[in-house]
Amino acid sequence: MTYQEVLEKARQQLGPYCKGCAVCNGRACGNRMPGPGAKGVGDTAIRNYDKWAEIRVNMDTLCENFVPDTRCELFGRIFRYPIFAGPVGAVRLHYSDLYTDMTYNEVLVRGCAAEGIAAFTGDGSDPDVMRMATQAIAKAGGIGVPTIKPWNLEVIRDKMDLAKASGCFAMAMDVDAAGLPFLKNMEPPAGSKSVEELRQIVEMAGVPFIVKGVMTVRGAMKAKEAGAAAIIVSNHGGRVLDQCPATAEVLPEIAAALKGSGVKVLVDGGIRSGVDVFKALALGADGVLIARPFVTAAYGGGEEGVRLYIQKLAAELTDTMQMCGTRSLAEIGPDSVWMKK
Amino acid sequence: MTYQEVLEKARQQLGPYCKGCAVCNGRACGNRMPGPGAKGVGDTAIRNYDKWAEIRVNMDTLCENFVPDTRCELFGRIFRYPIFAGPVGAVRLHYSDLYTDMTYNEVLVRGCAAEGIAAFTGDGSDPDVMRMATQAIAKAGGIGVPTIKPWNLEVIRDKMDLAKASGCFAMAMDVDAAGLPFLKNMEPPAGSKSVEELRQIVEMAGVPFIVKGVMTVRGAMKAKEAGAAAIIVSNHGGRVLDQCPATAEVLPEIAAALKGSGVKVLVDGGIRSGVDVFKALALGADGVLIARPFVTAAYGGGEEGVRLYIQKLAAELTDTMQMCGTRSLAEIGPDSVWMKK
Amino acid sequence: MTYQEVLEKARQQLGPYCKGCAVCNGRACGNRMPGPGAKGVGDTAIRNYDKWAEIRVNMDTLCENFVPDTRCELFGRIFRYPIFAGPVGAVRLHYSDLYTDMTYNEVLVRGCAAEGIAAFTGDGSDPDVMRMATQAIAKAGGIGVPTIKPWNLEVIRDKMDLAKASGCFAMAMDVDAAGLPFLKNMEPPAGSKSVEELRQIVEMAGVPFIVKGVMTVRGAMKAKEAGAAAIIVSNHGGRVLDQCPATAEVLPEIAAALKGSGVKVLVDGGIRSGVDVFKALALGADGVLIARPFVTAAYGGGEEGVRLYIQKLAAELTDTMQMCGTRSLAEIGPDSVWMKK
Amino acid sequence: MTYQEVLEKARQQLGPYCKGCAVCNGRACGNRMPGPGAKGVGDTAIRNYDKWAEIRVNMDTLCENFVPDTRCELFGRIFRYPIFAGPVGAVRLHYSDLYTDMTYNEVLVRGCAAEGIAAFTGDGSDPDVMRMATQAIAKAGGIGVPTIKPWNLEVIRDKMDLAKASGCFAMAMDVDAAGLPFLKNMEPPAGSKSVEELRQIVEMAGVPFIVKGVMTVRGAMKAKEAGAAAIIVSNHGGRVLDQCPATAEVLPEIAAALKGSGVKVLVDGGIRSGVDVFKALALGADGVLIARPFVTAAYGGGEEGVRLYIQKLAAELTDTMQMCGTRSLAEIGPDSVWMKK
Repeated sequence: MTYQEVLEKARQQLGPYCKGCAVCNGRACGNRMPGPGAKGVGDTAIRNYDKWAEIRVNMDTLCENFVPDTRCELFGRIFRYPIFAGPVGAVRLHYSDLYTDMTYNEVLVRGCAAEGIAAFTGDGSDPDVMRMATQAIAKAGGIGVPTIKPWNLEVIRDKMDLAKASGCFAMAMDVDAAGLPFLKNMEPPAGSKSVEELRQIVEMAGVPFIVKGVMTVRGAMKAKEAGAAAIIVSNHGGRVLDQCPATAEVLPEIAAALKGSGVKVLVDGGIRSGVDVFKALALGADGVLIARPFVTAAYGGGEEGVRLYIQKLAAELTDTMQMCGTRSLAEIGPDSVWMKK
Repeated sequence: MTYQEVLEKARQQLGPYCKGCAVCNGRACGNRMPGPGAKGVGDTAIRNYDKWAEIRVNMDTLCENFVPDTRCELFGRIFRYPIFAGPVGAVRLHYSDLYTDMTYNEVLVRGCAAEGIAAFTGDGSDPDVMRMATQAIAKAGGIGVPTIKPWNLEVIRDKMDLAKASGCFAMAMDVDAAGLPFLKNMEPPAGSKSVEELRQIVEMAGVPFIVKGVMTVRGAMKAKEAGAAAIIVSNHGGRVLDQCPATAEVLPEIAAALKGSGVKVLVDGGIRSGVDVFKALALGADGVLIARPFVTAAYGGGEEGVRLYIQKLAAELTDTMQMCGTRSLAEIGPDSVWMKK
Repeated sequence: MTYQEVLEKARQQLGPYCKGCAVCNGRACGNRMPGPGAKGVGDTAIRNYDKWAEIRVNMDTLCENFVPDTRCELFGRIFRYPIFAGPVGAVRLHYSDLYTDMTYNEVLVRGCAAEGIAAFTGDGSDPDVMRMATQAIAKAGGIGVPTIKPWNLEVIRDKMDLAKASGCFAMAMDVDAAGLPFLKNMEPPAGSKSVEELRQIVEMAGVPFIVKGVMTVRGAMKAKEAGAAAIIVSNHGGRVLDQCPATAEVLPEIAAALKGSGVKVLVDGGIRSGVDVFKALALGADGVLIARPFVTAAYGGGEEGVRLYIQKLAAELTDTMQMCGTRSLAEIGPDSVWMKK
Repeated sequence: MTYQEVLEKARQQLGPYCKGCAVCNGRACGNRMPGPGAKGVGDTAIRNYDKWAEIRVNMDTLCENFVPDTRCELFGRIFRYPIFAGPVGAVRLHYSDLYTDMTYNEVLVRGCAAEGIAAFTGDGSDPDVMRMATQAIAKAGGIGVPTIKPWNLEVIRDKMDLAKASGCFAMAMDVDAAGLPFLKNMEPPAGSKSVEELRQIVEMAGVPFIVKGVMTVRGAMKAKEAGAAAIIVSNHGGRVLDQCPATAEVLPEIAAALKGSGVKVLVDGGIRSGVDVFKALALGADGVLIARPFVTAAYGGGEEGVRLYIQKLAAELTDTMQMCGTRSLAEIGPDSVWMKK
């Protein structure tokens, strides 16, 4: 199977909302939800994609020939690439009946672990989603990050118990999911978390805790204050709030604010290729999350599709590092990219 | 009835000029008048819409979960949202026979009052327009703002007598209507108002007076000097002068100039959603006016349509406030939005 | 006859190159020559048009009601508007057989004089062009500007003799026509003029002399040094050199450099409406030239078409001045427009 | 034969990938390879072209009439124009069967030499490519630049022996070809060159050595340190690395960094006309390389096509120099162009 075949198969398997586009840029699915589209006028997903394209890479082949070291350290563990699969939920609603949230998470976790990286698993109203996700992570030796929605504390505690049992090396919470109706409509409404609440959650976790959905320096400082081990600069692909800035636009100042703090900075939103991964690192990220293309890969090729997509990303990242004279991730910095003044 | 149904019905009811577009952005109606289009090359209405989209909102859900307080104070009165329906005139000419200016104003005033906000009513050459608009406002307990064209002083006095009888809490004048032919062709020509003339008009009003159609700091200072209680940053949707800046472009400096003066700043032009309302407040406005989408709502669903559109705006504003960690309108400020430097 | 009818008739009369577009913006005729198109990739005419649209006018109706004074003084003469018809040549080649250069110039001069403005007449290889143009100017009491190509000095002297006999109040030379093949191919090649040569030409003229085709401060200083009474900031509609800046882009710095020098600054290129005229004056011009739309007007309605177009421009300029609170041309300044910083 | 006929013929001769577009701007061939397209998302070739169009030329015909001197000195030799044909390889794969790399190089070298400029010849895995290219250069009296891929040193030495035998006045290496699979897959992998390796290569050459594929000041400094006689600012038309800046964007700072160093600066990427050549010189280049349009010219008209294209470029460059008042290449400087601040 080739990645091209995965894409072709995916186009048949994906439901009416996702078109399985050759380039997943938020344009074909526009402002339509359900489906992969974004909320409101729907231009945030598009902007996420477009803003990476404005950043250009600085080619320099006047250096020794070398094989780039793409390894990434996170919380004491070494991953083969600075790439993580992002959490996705309600796949039957948004994509098609091929997977349930349970089976999607399984395929994703397995495929990523096999390629030396980790998947973030999604969460859902059905408790079985977290149960099966954490079982998959357990089978993968803890290589996976259970991502818990910002429920109320008791629900979080239950989910965390499952997560702990999986031996996962980290847990995450997409606090920006506060905008999703099923959380707002709970009794009492779930959603936003104060620094104090977040601190309790971080402590409850017992493993490094990652706060997903930070878009401002102010938010990053609060996550740090609450004890987060990492943040993910993310606008949830434009699905929780209309008309956010692109993550590439806010990443540099957030990364600068956290520099030297020990808090790791991940980023997602519109990252599609290994060149984009390189750019994100140049802008200060320690690693990236990619979500939608993994859906396409899983629907088009199952675990093999997931692996093929990771191999493609890895080849692109390696090639870009070689062509830019950067031997290791640490050498990728502001000088590695060119931006219009 | 859903708002979606209102839109669909509106598409059948609106005349040949207005297409009842899903997104009302000035593109389909272009430079055509009559109809909702703009004057000259017709790009001012388009620019009004587009420039709000360039302002992005700063998501931050790291805060206590809260129910936002969307209440807005204007001239001692509390409105449920910082949103007002804008004045519209000559609806038979521009839209279709479904309404006269009289019946349109009635529906608008009633629908707005029922949702806790106020409508600005339009004016016309036919004296019945103001008579029936003020009657509608009287029935709504004075919750409505009669908007008087910049006639000559005697005509204004007559219209104001009707307005006063309605118990309205404020009056307005769209001084930028000076560009409309029926005013220019009067004997003597009506139109622009000097500070001294405006001062007389303000005094005549006896209630807080709102000057609509200010696009410069210079104009704002003159309105203040004349005793205006509020201004509306507005280019009349591009209908009175070709190729103005967008209101979103000039709002920040005008709001800054009036800060602390006691003069309230409202804004209109291309505001379509609750996210846009949020952005306007972040840029310094105390509230917004929305005009064309209320036409669509009234033509598609009458009073119920008007209410459904207000509920939609309210839901979007509330959601945005929650997702940006702003508890009340006072907390929405420059930090709440992101703009390209 | 209405201006709309002129446009419709023009579409039938204009040859295969010009489409008689509703908005003449250089797009439909692109890089094609002959015809009204521009040289090379052909984007200079488009850029000329587009850059005016980026400048926005500052509406302000808080002032006394007034009738704007649109009168413009040039070389001691008063014109009704700061608008001149630009010189056009080889109309049979570029447009159609309806006119010869001789008859086109006649219609243009008559129509402009009747509306209180002056036309610049074109020149050609055929000596009859200048002969008949200057006869038309003579009939109009000298209200017209014979525009001489940058021939060699002897030819210029001959043409000037005809011009002098017409009693014209000024003469012009489009020095940027140096790029046209029929001048380059002369023996010796005609074209560019040194300051010293230009000084001789200015002296020969005996009336105020206007240098057309200045695009830099450096060029403006040389024209001044040579004794020019006025310059025209112009790139010849993109027809003599590929990929120039738009005239609106270089006008402000050129006007600033000549301020207080006594040398008048005119501008052409993409000016289509009275709002554009207003913008040009705000950027420092003393007046404007408009060329292509006068072709359309003359082909569509003869002298009456020319007059209707002038009346349209006048109405738009008057309206814009009223809506921006500018009583006279002198009051139109940098504060009258808004530009993105 | 006219250049227009060359273009028409080329459209029939070029294979399925190249469309022989009237304007070769990277859009029609997009991200497709093989063919002339670019790597990855494929926007680098497009950006190369587009960025030249943002630079505008400063027309000034107020100067003596003159015939521009377009002669360019490189390494003690005088060329008629500051234009070189760029190296192209694998023409059967990318274009069609009309030429082999051997016959293409021959036609190119002959056509260029006949017009007083030099061609850079391509390289390939088949040793015959370099053998025949250098034979063609020998026949042209050494007027041609053998361009060697960044092989391992032994292979380079073999190729250089052929090059030396040709009497070529200079040699080049496209070090950015390091990104091409056939080099990466060698044993040991060929590709990037350290300063020390490059120094050896430069010394081996024995003639002035040109480093092609420099996109940063850092890279330029390394080339200088290694003893390069010239660099070519180039991103290989976007074919070796996805999403580089345009060469026009990085040229000014690289040229400034090498100013006065004695290292010549050439540039390629999207240069299509004599106006573009003029702009490149204004931005600091000593000369330019043009590649794809020479393919079109050779496929459409053989040696005559190549000559016609050079004559077209020469006419455009000469015309632009005349219209901008620049007598010689040395007079083309930053003042010769206008760029948006």
